[in-house]
Amino acid sequence: MYRTHNCGELRIENVNTNVTLAGWVQIQRKFGSIAFVDVRDRYGITQLYFNETLTQQLDANPLGREFVIQATGKVIERSNKNPKLATGDIEIEITEYKVLNKSAVPPFTIEEETDGGEELRMKYRYLDLRRPTLQRNLELRYRVNRSVRTYMDSKGFYDIETPFLIKSTPEGARDFIVPSRMNEGEFYALPQSPQTFKQLLMVSGYDRYYQIVKCFRDEDLRADRQPEFTQLDCEMAFVEQEDILNMFEGLTRHVFQEVKGMTFNEAFPRMTWAQAMKRYGNDKPDIRFGMELVELKAPKGVLIESDEEVNLVGGADFKVMDDAEFVVAIAAPGCSEYTRKQLDELTEWVKRPQIGMTGMMYVKCNADGTLKSSVDKFYNEERLKQWAEKANAQPGDLILILTGPAERTRKAMSELRLEMGNRLGFRNRNEYKPLWVIDFPLLEFAENNDDGGGAGRWVARHHPFTSPKPDQIEWMKDKAKYPYIMANAYDLVLNGTEIGGGSIRIHQRDLQLQMFEALGINEHEAQEKFGFLLGAFEYGAPPHGGLALGFDRLCALLGGDETIRDYIAFPKNNSGRDVMIDAPSAVNPTQLDELKLALK
Amino acid sequence: MYRTHNCGELRIENVNTNVTLAGWVQIQRKFGSIAFVDVRDRYGITQLYFNETLTQQLDANPLGREFVIQATGKVIERSNKNPKLATGDIEIEITEYKVLNKSAVPPFTIEEETDGGEELRMKYRYLDLRRPTLQRNLELRYRVNRSVRTYMDSKGFYDIETPFLIKSTPEGARDFIVPSRMNEGEFYALPQSPQTFKQLLMVSGYDRYYQIVKCFRDEDLRADRQPEFTQLDCEMAFVEQEDILNMFEGLTRHVFQEVKGMTFNEAFPRMTWAQAMKRYGNDKPDIRFGMELVELKAPKGVLIESDEEVNLVGGADFKVMDDAEFVVAIAAPGCSEYTRKQLDELTEWVKRPQIGMTGMMYVKCNADGTLKSSVDKFYNEERLKQWAEKANAQPGDLILILTGPAERTRKAMSELRLEMGNRLGFRNRNEYKPLWVIDFPLLEFAENNDDGGGAGRWVARHHPFTSPKPDQIEWMKDKAKYPYIMANAYDLVLNGTEIGGGSIRIHQRDLQLQMFEALGINEHEAQEKFGFLLGAFEYGAPPHGGLALGFDRLCALLGGDETIRDYIAFPKNNSGRDVMIDAPSAVNPTQLDELKLALK
Repeated sequence: MYRTHNCGELRIENVNTNVTLAGWVQIQRKFGSIAFVDVRDRYGITQLYFNETLTQQLDANPLGREFVIQATGKVIERSNKNPKLATGDIEIEITEYKVLNKSAVPPFTIEEETDGGEELRMKYRYLDLRRPTLQRNLELRYRVNRSVRTYMDSKGFYDIETPFLIKSTPEGARDFIVPSRMNEGEFYALPQSPQTFKQLLMVSGYDRYYQIVKCFRDEDLRADRQPEFTQLDCEMAFVEQEDILNMFEGLTRHVFQEVKGMTFNEAFPRMTWAQAMKRYGNDKPDIRFGMELVELKAPKGVLIESDEEVNLVGGADFKVMDDAEFVVAIAAPGCSEYTRKQLDELTEWVKRPQIGMTGMMYVKCNADGTLKSSVDKFYNEERLKQWAEKANAQPGDLILILTGPAERTRKAMSELRLEMGNRLGFRNRNEYKPLWVIDFPLLEFAENNDDGGGAGRWVARHHPFTSPKPDQIEWMKDKAKYPYIMANAYDLVLNGTEIGGGSIRIHQRDLQLQMFEALGINEHEAQEKFGFLLGAFEYGAPPHGGLALGFDRLCALLGGDETIRDYIAFPKNNSGRDVMIDAPSAVNPTQLDELKLALK
Repeated sequence: MYRTHNCGELRIENVNTNVTLAGWVQIQRKFGSIAFVDVRDRYGITQLYFNETLTQQLDANPLGREFVIQATGKVIERSNKNPKLATGDIEIEITEYKVLNKSAVPPFTIEEETDGGEELRMKYRYLDLRRPTLQRNLELRYRVNRSVRTYMDSKGFYDIETPFLIKSTPEGARDFIVPSRMNEGEFYALPQSPQTFKQLLMVSGYDRYYQIVKCFRDEDLRADRQPEFTQLDCEMAFVEQEDILNMFEGLTRHVFQEVKGMTFNEAFPRMTWAQAMKRYGNDKPDIRFGMELVELKAPKGVLIESDEEVNLVGGADFKVMDDAEFVVAIAAPGCSEYTRKQLDELTEWVKRPQIGMTGMMYVKCNADGTLKSSVDKFYNEERLKQWAEKANAQPGDLILILTGPAERTRKAMSELRLEMGNRLGFRNRNEYKPLWVIDFPLLEFAENNDDGGGAGRWVARHHPFTSPKPDQIEWMKDKAKYPYIMANAYDLVLNGTEIGGGSIRIHQRDLQLQMFEALGINEHEAQEKFGFLLGAFEYGAPPHGGLALGFDRLCALLGGDETIRDYIAFPKNNSGRDVMIDAPSAVNPTQLDELKLALK
């Protein structure tokens, strides 16, 4: 044993104990003929006191930062206590020490805030991982893992491992494939999720299943996506949506309580997908703040759109408004005194390609009750008042207005709302507002489609194992008549981030076939790809449903961060590379020969 | 909610409660105008009582085995109690029931013992998984998982996930590789173990790491090997071998106590690799029984062989013995009355190609103290007595003797010993005898080698990250002088099965390079493949070591079984196929195009 204690546990009660510590040199200070060295490990930092003789030894062979040392001595009370340090009441009067391993000078500082850039830190990930920030993050991740397991265990869920070498069924995202040497010309695929396996476990009677499991998607990586990611995957038999929502609301409460000591007093609010889209322009609304979307002009519609046509902007002979399919507003509190420059800047912001608007209008609701707008020319104060009323704007508020096609404009306004939320400090990272979004669309009827599929077809909005709402199953047969089919599908949203989602699944063979057919997968193809599942449904499949949470994202949110990368020990960069180990890389030609593969 | 209670929880205390159950039809019995249906779920079986009206309904629409039903009624006391069933005191007097899903007739019986063959059960794995045996196995596996985590947690280990898409470093077994679409012509590899990553975590200061993690090896599958398998992977910093053995002896005790209620009274015995080979012919001896190997003739040797030449078979002018490099015996207790036929059959057994002996000799130690041997012609009773003494054979024992080249003969005798142990009932599956085998060889000097490497070279007996014993590091420089180098490497053996192993690792860059060089990996190649590890060792790597346990095997052993397949939810067959989902399979040509790959 290289140590009797770790670097974080000695206290005033341990004075006079003889101890041996081992760890990394954090910092050293010389005071004349004596010296102090702070030694660090996962558990903390302890100060070592070097007497004159040992200081001479130190001078002869200086220790560098990050040297690994072992030191033996007696715990003594510090004259100059450090209340910021758990071990700050004591130090070790050492009698001997030894260098266990030297260290070159690290390429960046190993401290709370480092001077190392992203790329450098990724390359030397093993050093970045020494920083307190990342150590805290990975500890938090472990605590979340443990906390999840405690809860799932208490509810009778079994952790059952599902296979990694499965079958490629290229729907949804792209699969990573794995050539098989023993089965020439054939490939496994890495799972995008254990979806079908967890359903089979329900068919097999395991009743409650969970797993914290790696999943894989060969997608072009947007910021903060990883080709391999971790999912908390769960499934339950003999349940309805209500049971699942309650179970995982319970999980969320449990984890927040255990990991952050935080309690949610009220039941998690629920909002339909249509409401979320209408009120926030977004299926994962951040409900930490209001500033809800208000429609000034909207067509009559079926899903999100209003039951009746809305038009509060017509009759003014203003072409922009008259041509627009959709006009939407938000009222930003306390922003009525925005300057010309600020407003121009916001206009530029919405005109960026990511947002894609052609311009922005505004109405200032002045503190004195008057209204001042960029479209005064077209609309009298009566009209502006009508808008302000609808937007529930108060004196001092600034109404921002976007116009354009419904879908794009709604999305743009959602982005603008979030941006204003950021600017106004409404998005406090220490405040947590969970939300269930329910009643997602499952199938949507597309009149025109690019794939030459003929006179319109169903487009999947959810995976093909999701059950339609029971009263809408019949609708699938007459797609031209019903423009959409909804599902008992739900997402758990936290602070504007989707942390998970799930649904009640199909458990009837006929309905599953019908669903495949609706999605353009004929019976032959369905049998080839999902024969095992269709088969399983023939032998007494129970009603079931489940949910999967993005574990990386959940940990980042619990840590008050947005980037998942800092909560993964060895992440990949945006090109899917591990720059530390330099993977992927070329392989030996004999490996390809054995697999009967050639590079093109 | 489809049920108020599960099928295993109702007791006499629940009489008069109104309940709804859901589950699978196990069996149904008609008695005149009434009927009983047993409904089953993961938790148990409950009897439903159908009154006359409901029985008429049942007759009109018969239920089949494995139908999924939901039934509502009142708990009543049973007149005819079933003490074998946890719910056997009660039954449900149902008022209504509903078929939730039908079932076709299963292709085999879903009972403790099934009539289904291996292939059929693999294809319908989701039905096989309903059998009580497999349900118990997967539950046990989950309990082992949980128990391991509780222990690791109590000892301050963090579960830290390591990546699955890593770099191919084709040493040891063959890697599965994964083509990268974003990095054309390059490949990831699936990890054979998280070895280098867990070492990096030690360098990063995480101090104690564990993971229950999938690993992958593209090996030709022998019986009971899986291309993907689960490992309990652990690493500790600032420790010596002793610390690791104690830690994982503690884990083993904890798991046996929690999962099987079993206590080991004594410290796990330890045996050097050389002793194990000499005494049992095997580096994973089954010490549930004796019958140790006794050398009647052995050359002077260095590792396993004796310090002095042994020869108790010379001078008899018996060519078989005189030509043999090695003669070894075991004394099988109580077998002196084996018939000619039995002995011939044993001789045939050792002559099978898997064992590879040319014959077998024996000495019967008769109950009356006389000795009778198949080689009476060459050896007088004095000589036979000498052998019997050396083999510690008692009257009534049968001494079995094999001859041949040392390595092969030792291995054959080890097999024969295990076979005799089986025949004599010495290998009780409910008795558990753990053993640490320590001091494994790390490098062995091969005089002649097939690979044209010149005048002899080191051959690796362990992975290249294993540290040589400190006092033998110097030996690496003079390979011709020292025929082997040993390591602080250890295996945990249970009942003749290796359930895990590990070692103290190299943590010094220079030594790691020296080790690579000894294994014929030059600095350039080492840098290319393991540059990240060599780099990490430059920045203050602590001394560290660890261990990995085969989780599938451990679960099978705890279940008293030998086949791991029955402890894996969705295993592959001996050709690496999942016959249920039919993987691997051909992929869409566009998938290959996107990866710039072609089949040869």
